[in-house]
Amino acid sequence: MSLAPIEYAAASPRVRAVYDDIMATRKVDWVNNFWKVLAHDPPTLERLWANLRQVMGPGALDPLTKELVYIAVSVTNNCRYCIASHGASARAKGMTEAQFAELLAVTGLANETNRLAVGYDVPVDERFR
Amino acid sequence: MSLAPIEYAAASPRVRAVYDDIMATRKVDWVNNFWKVLAHDPPTLERLWANLRQVMGPGALDPLTKELVYIAVSVTNNCRYCIASHGASARAKGMTEAQFAELLAVTGLANETNRLAVGYDVPVDERFR
Amino acid sequence: MSLAPIEYAAASPRVRAVYDDIMATRKVDWVNNFWKVLAHDPPTLERLWANLRQVMGPGALDPLTKELVYIAVSVTNNCRYCIASHGASARAKGMTEAQFAELLAVTGLANETNRLAVGYDVPVDERFR
Amino acid sequence: MSLAPIEYAAASPRVRAVYDDIMATRKVDWVNNFWKVLAHDPPTLERLWANLRQVMGPGALDPLTKELVYIAVSVTNNCRYCIASHGASARAKGMTEAQFAELLAVTGLANETNRLAVGYDVPVDERFR
Amino acid sequence: MSLAPIEYAAASPRVRAVYDDIMATRKVDWVNNFWKVLAHDPPTLERLWANLRQVMGPGALDPLTKELVYIAVSVTNNCRYCIASHGASARAKGMTEAQFAELLAVTGLANETNRLAVGYDVPVDERFR
Amino acid sequence: MSLAPIEYAAASPRVRAVYDDIMATRKVDWVNNFWKVLAHDPPTLERLWANLRQVMGPGALDPLTKELVYIAVSVTNNCRYCIASHGASARAKGMTEAQFAELLAVTGLANETNRLAVGYDVPVDERFR
Repeated sequence: MSLAPIEYAAASPRVRAVYDDIMATRKVDWVNNFWKVLAHDPPTLERLWANLRQVMGPGALDPLTKELVYIAVSVTNNCRYCIASHGASARAKGMTEAQFAELLAVTGLANETNRLAVGYDVPVDERFR
Repeated sequence: MSLAPIEYAAASPRVRAVYDDIMATRKVDWVNNFWKVLAHDPPTLERLWANLRQVMGPGALDPLTKELVYIAVSVTNNCRYCIASHGASARAKGMTEAQFAELLAVTGLANETNRLAVGYDVPVDERFR
Repeated sequence: MSLAPIEYAAASPRVRAVYDDIMATRKVDWVNNFWKVLAHDPPTLERLWANLRQVMGPGALDPLTKELVYIAVSVTNNCRYCIASHGASARAKGMTEAQFAELLAVTGLANETNRLAVGYDVPVDERFR
Repeated sequence: MSLAPIEYAAASPRVRAVYDDIMATRKVDWVNNFWKVLAHDPPTLERLWANLRQVMGPGALDPLTKELVYIAVSVTNNCRYCIASHGASARAKGMTEAQFAELLAVTGLANETNRLAVGYDVPVDERFR
Repeated sequence: MSLAPIEYAAASPRVRAVYDDIMATRKVDWVNNFWKVLAHDPPTLERLWANLRQVMGPGALDPLTKELVYIAVSVTNNCRYCIASHGASARAKGMTEAQFAELLAVTGLANETNRLAVGYDVPVDERFR
Repeated sequence: MSLAPIEYAAASPRVRAVYDDIMATRKVDWVNNFWKVLAHDPPTLERLWANLRQVMGPGALDPLTKELVYIAVSVTNNCRYCIASHGASARAKGMTEAQFAELLAVTGLANETNRLAVGYDVPVDERFR
């Protein structure tokens, strides 16, 4: 039983305030379904959007690198929605198809070697401590 | 029952050839335990090293970005060895502590929103298809 | 190649006995697809149903709390069927939409802090041992 | 390379403010390592603590139920630190050993049936939509 | 935004060479979508196919056993495509429905006991070291 | 706070009955820690042992193949205890080091291709349905 996205016209002022900030921050005129479904729980909507603004903005890492990391995690966790939405964000920030292909190659290989390190119970090198 | 790492002195010529290439490629004079444990299975040692060389080298993404992605996947999969080894690689390639902190912040938040998208079964937006 | 659910009319007496017990235990007149697909393997059908009866019934934790835990695990594992079926069970046992929203908020946040604890390799406090 | 926990005496005023709030909120006189490691990144320390306060406090679900959900997620994700810390929180909030045992039984069984639902690709029942 | 599979007629000579080897190795006259999507990134297409040929062929384990392991991992990771494709490969190599049912039973139970071992933090027996 | 294993001498008759059956079934004179920790919760001890007996015994798949599958799942889930215990079981049933190495190679590669299939959102081939 999934919840229907809440459109702007039907949203409460509290929810609209978040939608407005999402659109202003992103310089777009629409809001994607993730937020429109979270809108059923305004405190979570506000909290997550505040987290995302703080974490995904410019800092020591540039915004595109952060999107690439987001996609890698979402692929590892098998979150179809998140791959689609952050894939779109990454493309909007300049990710090329060649970069996306390399990102998936790295993500895949990391998943492989993670299991070999675990399966063989490789001891952490003294130099890495 | 974990397998003891195979040191260079005790390695077969086939294994030494891989160790030599690892050290030459990385411009270091030692080999970390991951490879020294894989050395018990030379075809896998050769195969994985060839994969890593191909995937992690320069391309559309720079090598540091690739290490960051590797760490994000390893954190999501809870591979302690891999976090230690790729953390060291990333630092060797210039990752600052501020970048590492942001990397973990993005990785953590992606793991959170992945579950909200799944738990609410958010439909993929038409614009993302 | 998914297996078609086996309806009551087409089921063997061995399978019908489980279906009957499911309906009697739940006081409903239908059986959900999970069991109707497991019916292709009667020993597993019987085993899993016996496990579920033992584990999910009243005990030190009340049945609704157990359903909430089931949903949290299913969301973390990304099992769409299980979120739908245990979401329905939880609602039948009284879960409100506000409780579901808080459940997802906790589940999401736990997934985030799990990765920060792992990524930073936080040592377990002496007081927790 | 794990980061050393930052003790109160060595902490900046910004970090101490969070430590003080943690201790006041929990009515204890110490801070666990998770926060003392996050203190290396004050914005994340503040952000995560604010999230935890909002999400784990009383609401539609009682605080103990929330701790049980946290443990179930941490077990599923294999986060040893988180199982230890939230296990302690849950015991402080009244969790008995019998409840912990049932919690693990439900968590384990959910992980099993999640895979059977996925492996058999069970179609979601019309009644669950 | 998923990429359209590249059909043989539209493929470059480099991609066709891989398709030809896939069909010759499997003694079939078609290529499944996994490879036709990877074809957008020829180095990854070549690399993964070479890996698969090396790893999945006859060796100390027979090819059917390897397919069963592949399915168990894919079920645990919730990869619907992979369950479908390796399920088909396993059936082509002789897997019966009874074997598939037992495979899923073992996979499910392992997922359950994994969590109990983690949740109870069971110490590794001296005899297992 | 992990629970101390309950030794035979200190066990209740109910727990001893399970220990006796474990030793008789396996034709060994000791019980591993997994069961000695579960002994704190006798209904779960009995339930899990009954499940394991039913699922891991001979059937359409031979017992060694089942142990290999168990290891593959445990590696994917990162359960150190389970890899150690089922690795020992597999060796007792004849698994060679070459087979273990191939098992890890397949497990690792499946984890890689799972992510590529998910990341590229590869559509399931009509022939696989």
